[in-house]
Amino acid sequence: MTLDLRFMGAALALAERTRGATSPNPGVGCIIVNNGRIVGRGWTKPGGRPHAEAVALAEAGAMARGATAYVTLEPCAHESARGPRCSTLLIAAGVAHVVAALGDPDPRTNGKGFQALRDAGIVVDTGIMAQEASQAMAGFLTRQALGRPHVTLKLAMSLDGRIAMTNGESRWITGPEARAHTHMERARHEMILVGRGTLESDAPALNVRLPGLESRSPRRAVLTQGGAPDGWEAVASPEAIAALTGVDHLLVEGGAGAASAFLAADLVDRLLLYRAPILIGAGKASLEDIGLTALADAHGRWHRRDTRMLGSDQLDVYERRRH
Amino acid sequence: MTLDLRFMGAALALAERTRGATSPNPGVGCIIVNNGRIVGRGWTKPGGRPHAEAVALAEAGAMARGATAYVTLEPCAHESARGPRCSTLLIAAGVAHVVAALGDPDPRTNGKGFQALRDAGIVVDTGIMAQEASQAMAGFLTRQALGRPHVTLKLAMSLDGRIAMTNGESRWITGPEARAHTHMERARHEMILVGRGTLESDAPALNVRLPGLESRSPRRAVLTQGGAPDGWEAVASPEAIAALTGVDHLLVEGGAGAASAFLAADLVDRLLLYRAPILIGAGKASLEDIGLTALADAHGRWHRRDTRMLGSDQLDVYERRRH
Repeated sequence: MTLDLRFMGAALALAERTRGATSPNPGVGCIIVNNGRIVGRGWTKPGGRPHAEAVALAEAGAMARGATAYVTLEPCAHESARGPRCSTLLIAAGVAHVVAALGDPDPRTNGKGFQALRDAGIVVDTGIMAQEASQAMAGFLTRQALGRPHVTLKLAMSLDGRIAMTNGESRWITGPEARAHTHMERARHEMILVGRGTLESDAPALNVRLPGLESRSPRRAVLTQGGAPDGWEAVASPEAIAALTGVDHLLVEGGAGAASAFLAADLVDRLLLYRAPILIGAGKASLEDIGLTALADAHGRWHRRDTRMLGSDQLDVYERRRH
Repeated sequence: MTLDLRFMGAALALAERTRGATSPNPGVGCIIVNNGRIVGRGWTKPGGRPHAEAVALAEAGAMARGATAYVTLEPCAHESARGPRCSTLLIAAGVAHVVAALGDPDPRTNGKGFQALRDAGIVVDTGIMAQEASQAMAGFLTRQALGRPHVTLKLAMSLDGRIAMTNGESRWITGPEARAHTHMERARHEMILVGRGTLESDAPALNVRLPGLESRSPRRAVLTQGGAPDGWEAVASPEAIAALTGVDHLLVEGGAGAASAFLAADLVDRLLLYRAPILIGAGKASLEDIGLTALADAHGRWHRRDTRMLGSDQLDVYERRRH
């Protein structure tokens, strides 16, 4: 049985299509390959159904027989009123080979999906591009492993780490390309959160202002012990995010107080650092106290995952190392 | 007459060899090519003599006849008790073609060198890789154009722009690779400057601790209206650097007060930003007030020239745009 990583790469790209729109289901990608040719493509639809495999198998039709299915997550093995088991569908379609990136930690499937496939005589390879898949399905996996959403902290800064001038002026530090990138990131999260100070002083819209993606504007939350204005939800503390339903990806957009509260609680998994080629000098710091008591403790926590230019701004993406 | 940019690239690399050791002379590189083969290599020796062309011609010997000489700066045309005119040497050696990056702004040569070569029947091409040459000989050119040294500001920061914890702890933010790079940079400057607070609290050695380069430790200065301790020079203000003799490259190593004073005076030409993959939160800011009154004024001043990883730290080099 041959195995081509490019097809798994394509499946991972499909998995990302509905990131932020499938909670509590994972966003899965599936590519079906018959004799070296892609005959079916599927990804989890918004709302979580139909599943990627069902979509891809429907497209493949009779060409699924004897084919290889690349899936980013173990095909489900549990009954649901909302659709058939994917493992059953793959068997019924006559697929010969299933290549999977990750097992499904959901206890209703966890290993049972692969077992059902193998019991039916299908060759199963697992752990293929597992690390990339962990990133593509970070929200679902964080919810399963840690019982809370995956948290991204966004900071738009000057080269010297300022997020505003002393008088609060922050429009604009970054350029239009970086701001468009932020809108794209918003569309990949179920919820955006700001601190109360930012809500009151900036009254941010926090919507997705990209043509065709307006409907992907996420829910809006404010970090506060008090109430929230119309159209906003109140989140009492960083730890309270565990209780949010329908939120697997949370984007913390600032200000420094909210950012620092999430970092102090070690509840940030990913940093989106947009850096403009300017110096501000005296101004508002990007962070306040995050509970650090010794410099040595700050090391070994963050790993640079990506870097790119957005116009004249630089984006660096760091991920929290958790062992 | 053919012209190969790779030879000019090699000449520029030679020009950088004695950066920080030739003031008030420029550090020049010279490559002599006969029939596609390098037959002579020269660069300005520490102290400014002999000149690059004299060294390269001596190595080429009779092979210089009919050859092409690649030089990063116009060959000198003025008499000196310390050595012969390079334009005269090139003519006497029978060089057929001179390729130069930049004209020499020194009024004793400025165009006269090229004219002498052309008068002798040598083909002269100029302006070849001029921008790269401007960087390689930045100290000399800044001294000629602006009457002061070329100033580099180094900042070693966390991702959030802190240069120390609140208690002053700053060892270490960056790792050994970044610190070794700083030592290499020191060797390329005639003088290093720190603020008085940094001198008093850190008592920095500011020497070059790299095997074989110990002798390249630059002079040390402190920004102060008062006196300086033994082994240190006092510089009363950023503007006072114009009066420093034998200093064409100045490295400002901090702290935030000295850095901000040079930025407020618009006397920084280059930023060396070392950024460690850590977050500090509350701590010492990299800069204080630099005189910025509107965010729009901060834009358009800095251009990213280089970026690289040094271990797990990121180095970004920015240059001041001056029009």
